[in-house]
Amino acid sequence: MSKTPVTSLGEFGLIDLLTANVKQYDNGTIKGIGDDTAAIDTGDNITLLTKDLLVEGVHFNIMYTPLRHLGYKSIVVNLSDIYAMNGTPTQVIVGIAVSSRYTVEALEEIYEGMKLACDKYKVDLVGGDTTSSASGLFISVTALGKVGKGKITYRSGAQSNDLICVSGNLGAAYAGLLILEREKEVFKANPQAQPDISQFSYVLERQLKPEARQDVVELLQQKGIVPTAMIDISDGLASEVLHISKASGKGAVIYEEKIPVDMQTATVAHDFKIDPTTFALNGGEDYELLFCVSQQDYEKIKDVESISIIGHVTDNPAQTDLISTSGNVIPLRAQGWDSFRGENRE
Amino acid sequence: MSKTPVTSLGEFGLIDLLTANVKQYDNGTIKGIGDDTAAIDTGDNITLLTKDLLVEGVHFNIMYTPLRHLGYKSIVVNLSDIYAMNGTPTQVIVGIAVSSRYTVEALEEIYEGMKLACDKYKVDLVGGDTTSSASGLFISVTALGKVGKGKITYRSGAQSNDLICVSGNLGAAYAGLLILEREKEVFKANPQAQPDISQFSYVLERQLKPEARQDVVELLQQKGIVPTAMIDISDGLASEVLHISKASGKGAVIYEEKIPVDMQTATVAHDFKIDPTTFALNGGEDYELLFCVSQQDYEKIKDVESISIIGHVTDNPAQTDLISTSGNVIPLRAQGWDSFRGENRE
Repeated sequence: MSKTPVTSLGEFGLIDLLTANVKQYDNGTIKGIGDDTAAIDTGDNITLLTKDLLVEGVHFNIMYTPLRHLGYKSIVVNLSDIYAMNGTPTQVIVGIAVSSRYTVEALEEIYEGMKLACDKYKVDLVGGDTTSSASGLFISVTALGKVGKGKITYRSGAQSNDLICVSGNLGAAYAGLLILEREKEVFKANPQAQPDISQFSYVLERQLKPEARQDVVELLQQKGIVPTAMIDISDGLASEVLHISKASGKGAVIYEEKIPVDMQTATVAHDFKIDPTTFALNGGEDYELLFCVSQQDYEKIKDVESISIIGHVTDNPAQTDLISTSGNVIPLRAQGWDSFRGENRE
Repeated sequence: MSKTPVTSLGEFGLIDLLTANVKQYDNGTIKGIGDDTAAIDTGDNITLLTKDLLVEGVHFNIMYTPLRHLGYKSIVVNLSDIYAMNGTPTQVIVGIAVSSRYTVEALEEIYEGMKLACDKYKVDLVGGDTTSSASGLFISVTALGKVGKGKITYRSGAQSNDLICVSGNLGAAYAGLLILEREKEVFKANPQAQPDISQFSYVLERQLKPEARQDVVELLQQKGIVPTAMIDISDGLASEVLHISKASGKGAVIYEEKIPVDMQTATVAHDFKIDPTTFALNGGEDYELLFCVSQQDYEKIKDVESISIIGHVTDNPAQTDLISTSGNVIPLRAQGWDSFRGENRE
């Protein structure tokens, strides 16, 4: 048998390979693999189903991740996928595997964070599985949600000339990660060091305790806007624009000057001598929403504070470009974080 | 902060502690923590939701577990929970974390087994998450199912004088595990050894590639029987009888001579100088169904080949006894397998 390393495919290539030839039996299955969530017709509504894993040493470093925040984040990243379908999360189910170095008190911290997120987003924790592991901490959360039949938003519905919008600001979570990694090295070199990282509190919180954009989904509903396509930004803006483009069979043009970046993110980027746009395009873990709306909705959306219009959809699926501030046309590439490669792809 | 080892509580005590004070927000949540699955009212039907983890070095030893079987089993153990609610599984969603020593081909083997189980049970694989791990293989499967509103069967519905029934036979999976563990030691001592384990093929298959009792749920439906309570046998008969007893607030009496044990299981028990009844009571991983039916259903169920009537429900919740073949009354204890203790509890 040949031995192909998983790194040679990357996450998306691997999923394509593994899930080839999956058959469908249940008439209720509307959407299987290939969107933020699966979608199942359950009568009155569509039921949404999604799962995200958080793995120690891959998705988080226990050295600088408060366990309560980790529990909180493990719920939020799943709810984000439900919102990305224009849905409302309703239940979560939690699997945790822990090695013997985790105490009952450590597990209680994780669960406190999970319950805090459930309380904030009004979601029910309805079960799960708790077991031991040979080494490390693994958290597997599955979220269930619902959405009206006329309101579900796939990645695949973008139409030519639609406006491309993004919520909040991008790159902050990656900025927070870089600060944490830098402080870890400082601490390793000098355990007595007392770093002042309070000036980075915003980007640190974006990394350690992100929120899902429930407010944006509610705002769109209030304004009577059903996006034509939507996805949450977990792997960086570039990767997500390419997902929508591929799923919709359309092109996209986005403008660097329109990409929202917080001042603190820009400061960190400057410290690390990296272009802030690179943080936004490839940083990942922002859990903002990227969505497309019809041009007819322009008046409704143009003055909404937490939403930026960053580009538009084009006819040509081969065209997915960034127009730089200086006017250069740069093809977008998915350089987002890939757990199998452990670093940004080059 | 105090440091309580997880082993001091065991799985069920830990879950009780961690999920204390869980609030409920969604009107659709009918059943949260505390049964084989969660149950959610989704209009026409009740949607069932369950999750089971399989962790390398805890739930399986990669040395003697064919990856295809492992994938198959990871699906089946979840479907078993759906059947235990008298439901029909419809979708599964899969999370896998693997270390770099697993190749693409290894993952393909696991997925082949998963797809085989999905094909056999007519269930849709609708998504998931695939990621790397720092060490080891973790599989987290979530199953979704449905059941009619008048047909859902909880652990809590047993009534006094109900008949206690079990499908198939018990202890076989544990017998298979003991054979595999013994052969592993033989192999370690002498890698050239060519053991003949074909005589144990039935119990080995029960351990490595178990099936869920879809047929039993269908049979009950054909006979017009809705069990008053049901649970799948994953931790041994004793543990499951106690679960039904506690949830229903009733007692139970079961008869040793009525407990179905296969001849091959008995042979292995004899080889290991262990009472076969101990295998059945405490072995676990049988994935048979334990259920209660009204005495009025006796005529319908008494001659069904794959079902044994092993006892009855009593009024007194403090009475959960095994009547031994020699007539002794032995209180049942949950000595089933606990991942946090790594061995049968004593």
